[in-house]
Amino acid sequence: MSSTDQLSASDDADYTSNPHLSKYPRHTIAEGGRIKVGVLGATGTVGQRFITLLAVHPWFTIHVLGASSRSANQTYAKAVRWKQTTPIPTSVREMIVQECLPEHFTQCAIVFSGLDAEVAGDIESAFRAADLAIFSNAKNFRRDAHVPLIVPLVNPHHFSIIAQQRSIHSPPLKKGFIVTNANCSTTGFVIPIAALEKAFGPIESLLVTTMQAISGAGYPGVASLDILDNVIPYIGGEEEKIEWETLKILGGVVEGDDGLKTFDMHSRHPLRVSASCNRVPVIDGHTECVSLRFAKRPPPSPQQVREALASFTPDAQALGCPSAPRHAITVHEEPDRPQPRLDRYYQDGAGVSVGRVRQCRVLDVKFVVLSNNVSIGAATSSIINAEIAVLKGVVQS
Amino acid sequence: MSSTDQLSASDDADYTSNPHLSKYPRHTIAEGGRIKVGVLGATGTVGQRFITLLAVHPWFTIHVLGASSRSANQTYAKAVRWKQTTPIPTSVREMIVQECLPEHFTQCAIVFSGLDAEVAGDIESAFRAADLAIFSNAKNFRRDAHVPLIVPLVNPHHFSIIAQQRSIHSPPLKKGFIVTNANCSTTGFVIPIAALEKAFGPIESLLVTTMQAISGAGYPGVASLDILDNVIPYIGGEEEKIEWETLKILGGVVEGDDGLKTFDMHSRHPLRVSASCNRVPVIDGHTECVSLRFAKRPPPSPQQVREALASFTPDAQALGCPSAPRHAITVHEEPDRPQPRLDRYYQDGAGVSVGRVRQCRVLDVKFVVLSNNVSIGAATSSIINAEIAVLKGVVQS
Amino acid sequence: MSSTDQLSASDDADYTSNPHLSKYPRHTIAEGGRIKVGVLGATGTVGQRFITLLAVHPWFTIHVLGASSRSANQTYAKAVRWKQTTPIPTSVREMIVQECLPEHFTQCAIVFSGLDAEVAGDIESAFRAADLAIFSNAKNFRRDAHVPLIVPLVNPHHFSIIAQQRSIHSPPLKKGFIVTNANCSTTGFVIPIAALEKAFGPIESLLVTTMQAISGAGYPGVASLDILDNVIPYIGGEEEKIEWETLKILGGVVEGDDGLKTFDMHSRHPLRVSASCNRVPVIDGHTECVSLRFAKRPPPSPQQVREALASFTPDAQALGCPSAPRHAITVHEEPDRPQPRLDRYYQDGAGVSVGRVRQCRVLDVKFVVLSNNVSIGAATSSIINAEIAVLKGVVQS
Amino acid sequence: MSSTDQLSASDDADYTSNPHLSKYPRHTIAEGGRIKVGVLGATGTVGQRFITLLAVHPWFTIHVLGASSRSANQTYAKAVRWKQTTPIPTSVREMIVQECLPEHFTQCAIVFSGLDAEVAGDIESAFRAADLAIFSNAKNFRRDAHVPLIVPLVNPHHFSIIAQQRSIHSPPLKKGFIVTNANCSTTGFVIPIAALEKAFGPIESLLVTTMQAISGAGYPGVASLDILDNVIPYIGGEEEKIEWETLKILGGVVEGDDGLKTFDMHSRHPLRVSASCNRVPVIDGHTECVSLRFAKRPPPSPQQVREALASFTPDAQALGCPSAPRHAITVHEEPDRPQPRLDRYYQDGAGVSVGRVRQCRVLDVKFVVLSNNVSIGAATSSIINAEIAVLKGVVQS
Repeated sequence: MSSTDQLSASDDADYTSNPHLSKYPRHTIAEGGRIKVGVLGATGTVGQRFITLLAVHPWFTIHVLGASSRSANQTYAKAVRWKQTTPIPTSVREMIVQECLPEHFTQCAIVFSGLDAEVAGDIESAFRAADLAIFSNAKNFRRDAHVPLIVPLVNPHHFSIIAQQRSIHSPPLKKGFIVTNANCSTTGFVIPIAALEKAFGPIESLLVTTMQAISGAGYPGVASLDILDNVIPYIGGEEEKIEWETLKILGGVVEGDDGLKTFDMHSRHPLRVSASCNRVPVIDGHTECVSLRFAKRPPPSPQQVREALASFTPDAQALGCPSAPRHAITVHEEPDRPQPRLDRYYQDGAGVSVGRVRQCRVLDVKFVVLSNNVSIGAATSSIINAEIAVLKGVVQS
Repeated sequence: MSSTDQLSASDDADYTSNPHLSKYPRHTIAEGGRIKVGVLGATGTVGQRFITLLAVHPWFTIHVLGASSRSANQTYAKAVRWKQTTPIPTSVREMIVQECLPEHFTQCAIVFSGLDAEVAGDIESAFRAADLAIFSNAKNFRRDAHVPLIVPLVNPHHFSIIAQQRSIHSPPLKKGFIVTNANCSTTGFVIPIAALEKAFGPIESLLVTTMQAISGAGYPGVASLDILDNVIPYIGGEEEKIEWETLKILGGVVEGDDGLKTFDMHSRHPLRVSASCNRVPVIDGHTECVSLRFAKRPPPSPQQVREALASFTPDAQALGCPSAPRHAITVHEEPDRPQPRLDRYYQDGAGVSVGRVRQCRVLDVKFVVLSNNVSIGAATSSIINAEIAVLKGVVQS
Repeated sequence: MSSTDQLSASDDADYTSNPHLSKYPRHTIAEGGRIKVGVLGATGTVGQRFITLLAVHPWFTIHVLGASSRSANQTYAKAVRWKQTTPIPTSVREMIVQECLPEHFTQCAIVFSGLDAEVAGDIESAFRAADLAIFSNAKNFRRDAHVPLIVPLVNPHHFSIIAQQRSIHSPPLKKGFIVTNANCSTTGFVIPIAALEKAFGPIESLLVTTMQAISGAGYPGVASLDILDNVIPYIGGEEEKIEWETLKILGGVVEGDDGLKTFDMHSRHPLRVSASCNRVPVIDGHTECVSLRFAKRPPPSPQQVREALASFTPDAQALGCPSAPRHAITVHEEPDRPQPRLDRYYQDGAGVSVGRVRQCRVLDVKFVVLSNNVSIGAATSSIINAEIAVLKGVVQS
Repeated sequence: MSSTDQLSASDDADYTSNPHLSKYPRHTIAEGGRIKVGVLGATGTVGQRFITLLAVHPWFTIHVLGASSRSANQTYAKAVRWKQTTPIPTSVREMIVQECLPEHFTQCAIVFSGLDAEVAGDIESAFRAADLAIFSNAKNFRRDAHVPLIVPLVNPHHFSIIAQQRSIHSPPLKKGFIVTNANCSTTGFVIPIAALEKAFGPIESLLVTTMQAISGAGYPGVASLDILDNVIPYIGGEEEKIEWETLKILGGVVEGDDGLKTFDMHSRHPLRVSASCNRVPVIDGHTECVSLRFAKRPPPSPQQVREALASFTPDAQALGCPSAPRHAITVHEEPDRPQPRLDRYYQDGAGVSVGRVRQCRVLDVKFVVLSNNVSIGAATSSIINAEIAVLKGVVQS
């Protein structure tokens, strides 16, 4: 897998002159002007991916690694069972792993969480209570009424709920908050769906059948005896996640008469989502067959859909997020693309690929989406979310 | 994989007393009372499967093997590159392979065709013109207005077109005809769909996403570099086949004012079918995610659907076809079944498995179907079709 | 997988007239004359395989199923996560699982153990102390000086140690004993090696490189992320097992001046064994590349080796063991066989396949062995061992 | 796959000042000072890999692409069925593919050949006769007595035969020659073997069992039905190639009394090589289990072997070849490495990985080698060979 052109550790010049960076408190800025960040669940699959990406990040520098007490107090190289295709970054090899306690992370302006759901709830709560800013890949707070569920190429405007999240906390928080990113299988298709709603107005119904990679289940995850020469037509809780998260992500944030903001769950234009989730013997990359119906009649043609997807420009690009992909959506013309093995590493997996846009005889149009579940479907989303937060001044405000 | 309990070569007693068998001309009956059959395309993937099944068939005996001129005049063992998991049946090892010319098959009451589409059209035409009865797995005649496209557990009543197929031939045929079976990916889901239409009336729309095994592409078929750790979201022509064949199979045969019969393509209750076809790294067994909407409002509940599927009894069973499965549709209650690796060989692949019957938020219900593409999806269908034809007296009439 | 012709549950006639069976105590014989057997570790991978085989065994009938306390007191269908490609045998579905305590197994003339190594030591000891006859697939007692390590097609003469095993027990046992079978990767190649030593005298050195199936690691066993598109060139402890077990199996039993029998570890003709073990993405079937040097000079030619392998007839066949394969060693002439996917289920995996017998430029000859690790490499070996013990009167003596 | 740090297209500064480059004839130097190169077989698997590497090469620039007449006269993007995980380099997308005729390549100082063996012989001969310098990945000339077979990290001194290759040609050549690189499975293990001979003197015997990736067979290559859930214990001609090529590569070049140079095939210290080749379901990366015996008694210990491997520095590094790996041999200490999926892309596959160095009970030591068959096993070797030739002045002399 490649170091991508959008991530380059070498052109430092701009950071100190970055007006957002200059606002950061002294202790959160490392030598060279980088922002200190921490990683929770550092030895896990998502944690390893965070580390791989952060080690070459132009703004962030890994300051603390947190893991379970079993791993704590060892060097990272000892504690981890490294499963990436690039070696452990030299900068973290000898770092001593800490327990996941807020006191070890006080110098971090940002804390990324790759924790397992079993422990993420308590630890992330404690970190937020300690006024830390958490960008979490765990599912625990995704359904929380005050926590935004942000797919960075789709709904960064949901950051607007953060002030309320802080204020309702007791005692109110100054800097702490939790932002989550979506489930990997949701992330892939909501990006083209958002592009289509932007171009053609609300979508009314949406059927998605997924063929998900084994890396989506973590490590050890799926037993090889269960998946070699096989398809498992079931992933526990996954269909419910897709059907619910899609509404939160694609919906708006509305303010009630009481001044309280809520997520409207796309309720102004009810959207019916039906998901069927399958595990397939693919290492990385979720392939998803989507059929949908627009509210707009007559609906846009496949060609119009293709053009709307190809020209979609998310705010994250406009803002200048260094980890945002150059092309949010790559539209393939070949009849047999995208394919996970060939297309998942394009742009280091930060964008998505769409192909086979064509008419659907039951709904309006159908197409295939491929997204890299370990990149835009996980750590990369958290990191772009953090970049947006920095650029919008959310982290500091 | 096993010789199944429904196929037993040992209990010969009934055949001579079978009234249908007794009607056969002398020269088509082998010693021991078995009906002589031929296999076209005998060295190919489907041909090998025909041979494996016919070698233990209680009624049929392999009399001639036909293949390309390259293979002709060699022993079968020499000519074939055998890829089955059971050895070449002893009865055919030393049989001399013939060219696919009708004169070599005159003693065969039935000819099974596993020919490739490139040659099937001409050869099957010639065989029919020579008054031979062809049961073909090739696609060439599936769209012919006088050729029935029969999934044996679904529409054996389409045999009623045979008389017309013979009579419009010039000169009219006495015994010859062509019967085709459906594409492997169509076969799997039309069986539960037929069961549901039988129980609840017409289905209005149907969305199916397939995850198809590599054996569906024949040999050498899919290159390993294309499918290992991959999904190919495209199979040339497959979606069109599904969308068209479904209508012919599930539709009726109607007689016009001119006395001519035609296939009505389900036109009395228009049925919209939308298919998305994918190739996955699975050896045998097509897994299909189906969502559908009934005409009937309110629609049946998932539980009613489950019951209708489990209790479906096709005519082929009632008729006593030896290769028909005991359970046409096995309904799984476990949340993660059916799975190709675990369920494809049940009943030697002659039935289909359905699981995960549940509500669909966009259409009415959705479920997963698994069918063994090399068994009920190919050779087994042809053989049951021939059994039905024998029992209904079609072969002889 | 097929029910094989050598296993047939239908021709009961002979059992009561079997002189060996007639000697069994009343309480160990079930209705119909079958010997009652128990299975320890019944819910595990090996246990499931024992059950699949025993459910159609002509002599044995499953009387008790033992598993961990977590599974105990549930029906087998509830307790097990069944992973076989044939359904759970009806005869055991509703059987109540017991804890692995000897008191539940007192009516069993034979107890098969598919226990994990973590618990096998204590439980098997306790069962033996309760005077029960154990045929174990676990590794715990394989290196015990009084426990035979029997590959049924190779060294059933090692049963001769049983009397001593009983007599040295305190108090001495009347019927109880432990017999183990070998590690799956050892089992495969010692069969051809035994055939060659029988034909050409001692082998002097032996290099084996294995490519082992994932099912050899049990369930969940190997993580899919570790093995898809990969080879793991290491299996913990496996090389040591091969290098040691080979010597015990191929060696003799010698009696010292003190009348005590010991295993001579092939020491009369020292045999050097070097193993390199790899895990590959294959479901069932261990493929092994073997090179060896004979003591005899000049060594036999590849053709002589081929003939010796093909004509090898183990005692288990001569004795009439119902689960012994008809062909102990199948010698392939095709250049690219044996292959696990095509050859592993031949004879239900009870024999082994050898191919590519040719000269080795470093040692004398080299060849490829394929053995089904879940059949002859595990449960099938235990069962044939038990059959031999019945026929030799060891169980009863 | 990553663009590696040793390949960088951005720091042009040095090339014009490179004394070797400055010697090149005008017409072979492109704007910017790069050497014009051609690629034969540009649409094939190896050709695509050449293009991927050359598009970012610091010295070379792709000037002509040659392919079969079927592809000629189309743009490369049209002609190719691109199967790399990075997009087609922009610089070649619209290049018009030429037929493989020398007249189209006259401006190329170097021609890389990724031709299939069926056509490579004639075309490469014709190119050499036209006084062109060919670096070929094809097998056709590997056994030619005047063509060096060069693994760039092992035997670049074999370039010394080039003068003779030119002079014996009729008419003698000024610049033309053919250099081949080795078969992918040979390349992997001769690198550590060369390191060990350098450190400890001649090796006497060598047993290697390979587990080779499917990409080694080209495209479409291995049928998925042949390799999914399988091992094929045979690769036609592969074992003979290994056993022969190893001797040519590791042997010296000696001059006879007649002044003629010949390859001595390691004959001063006869080396016996025995290979067993297997195909496994791995996409890229050949894993090889090697056992060997040194002439030196007592032999070096595993620890000494490890150190000799880790400290091996090939001439290609010393010379400053830009595509040479920083670490020729990476020695792993973890017990379960190297693994193809985790280690094959390290250094863009330009080095090899060795692990599990330990004593062998039959020979002296054994270990596991992993090499990337599409990089150092193919195109990367040709390119480093060309770099060496440039640096040594062979191309120009």
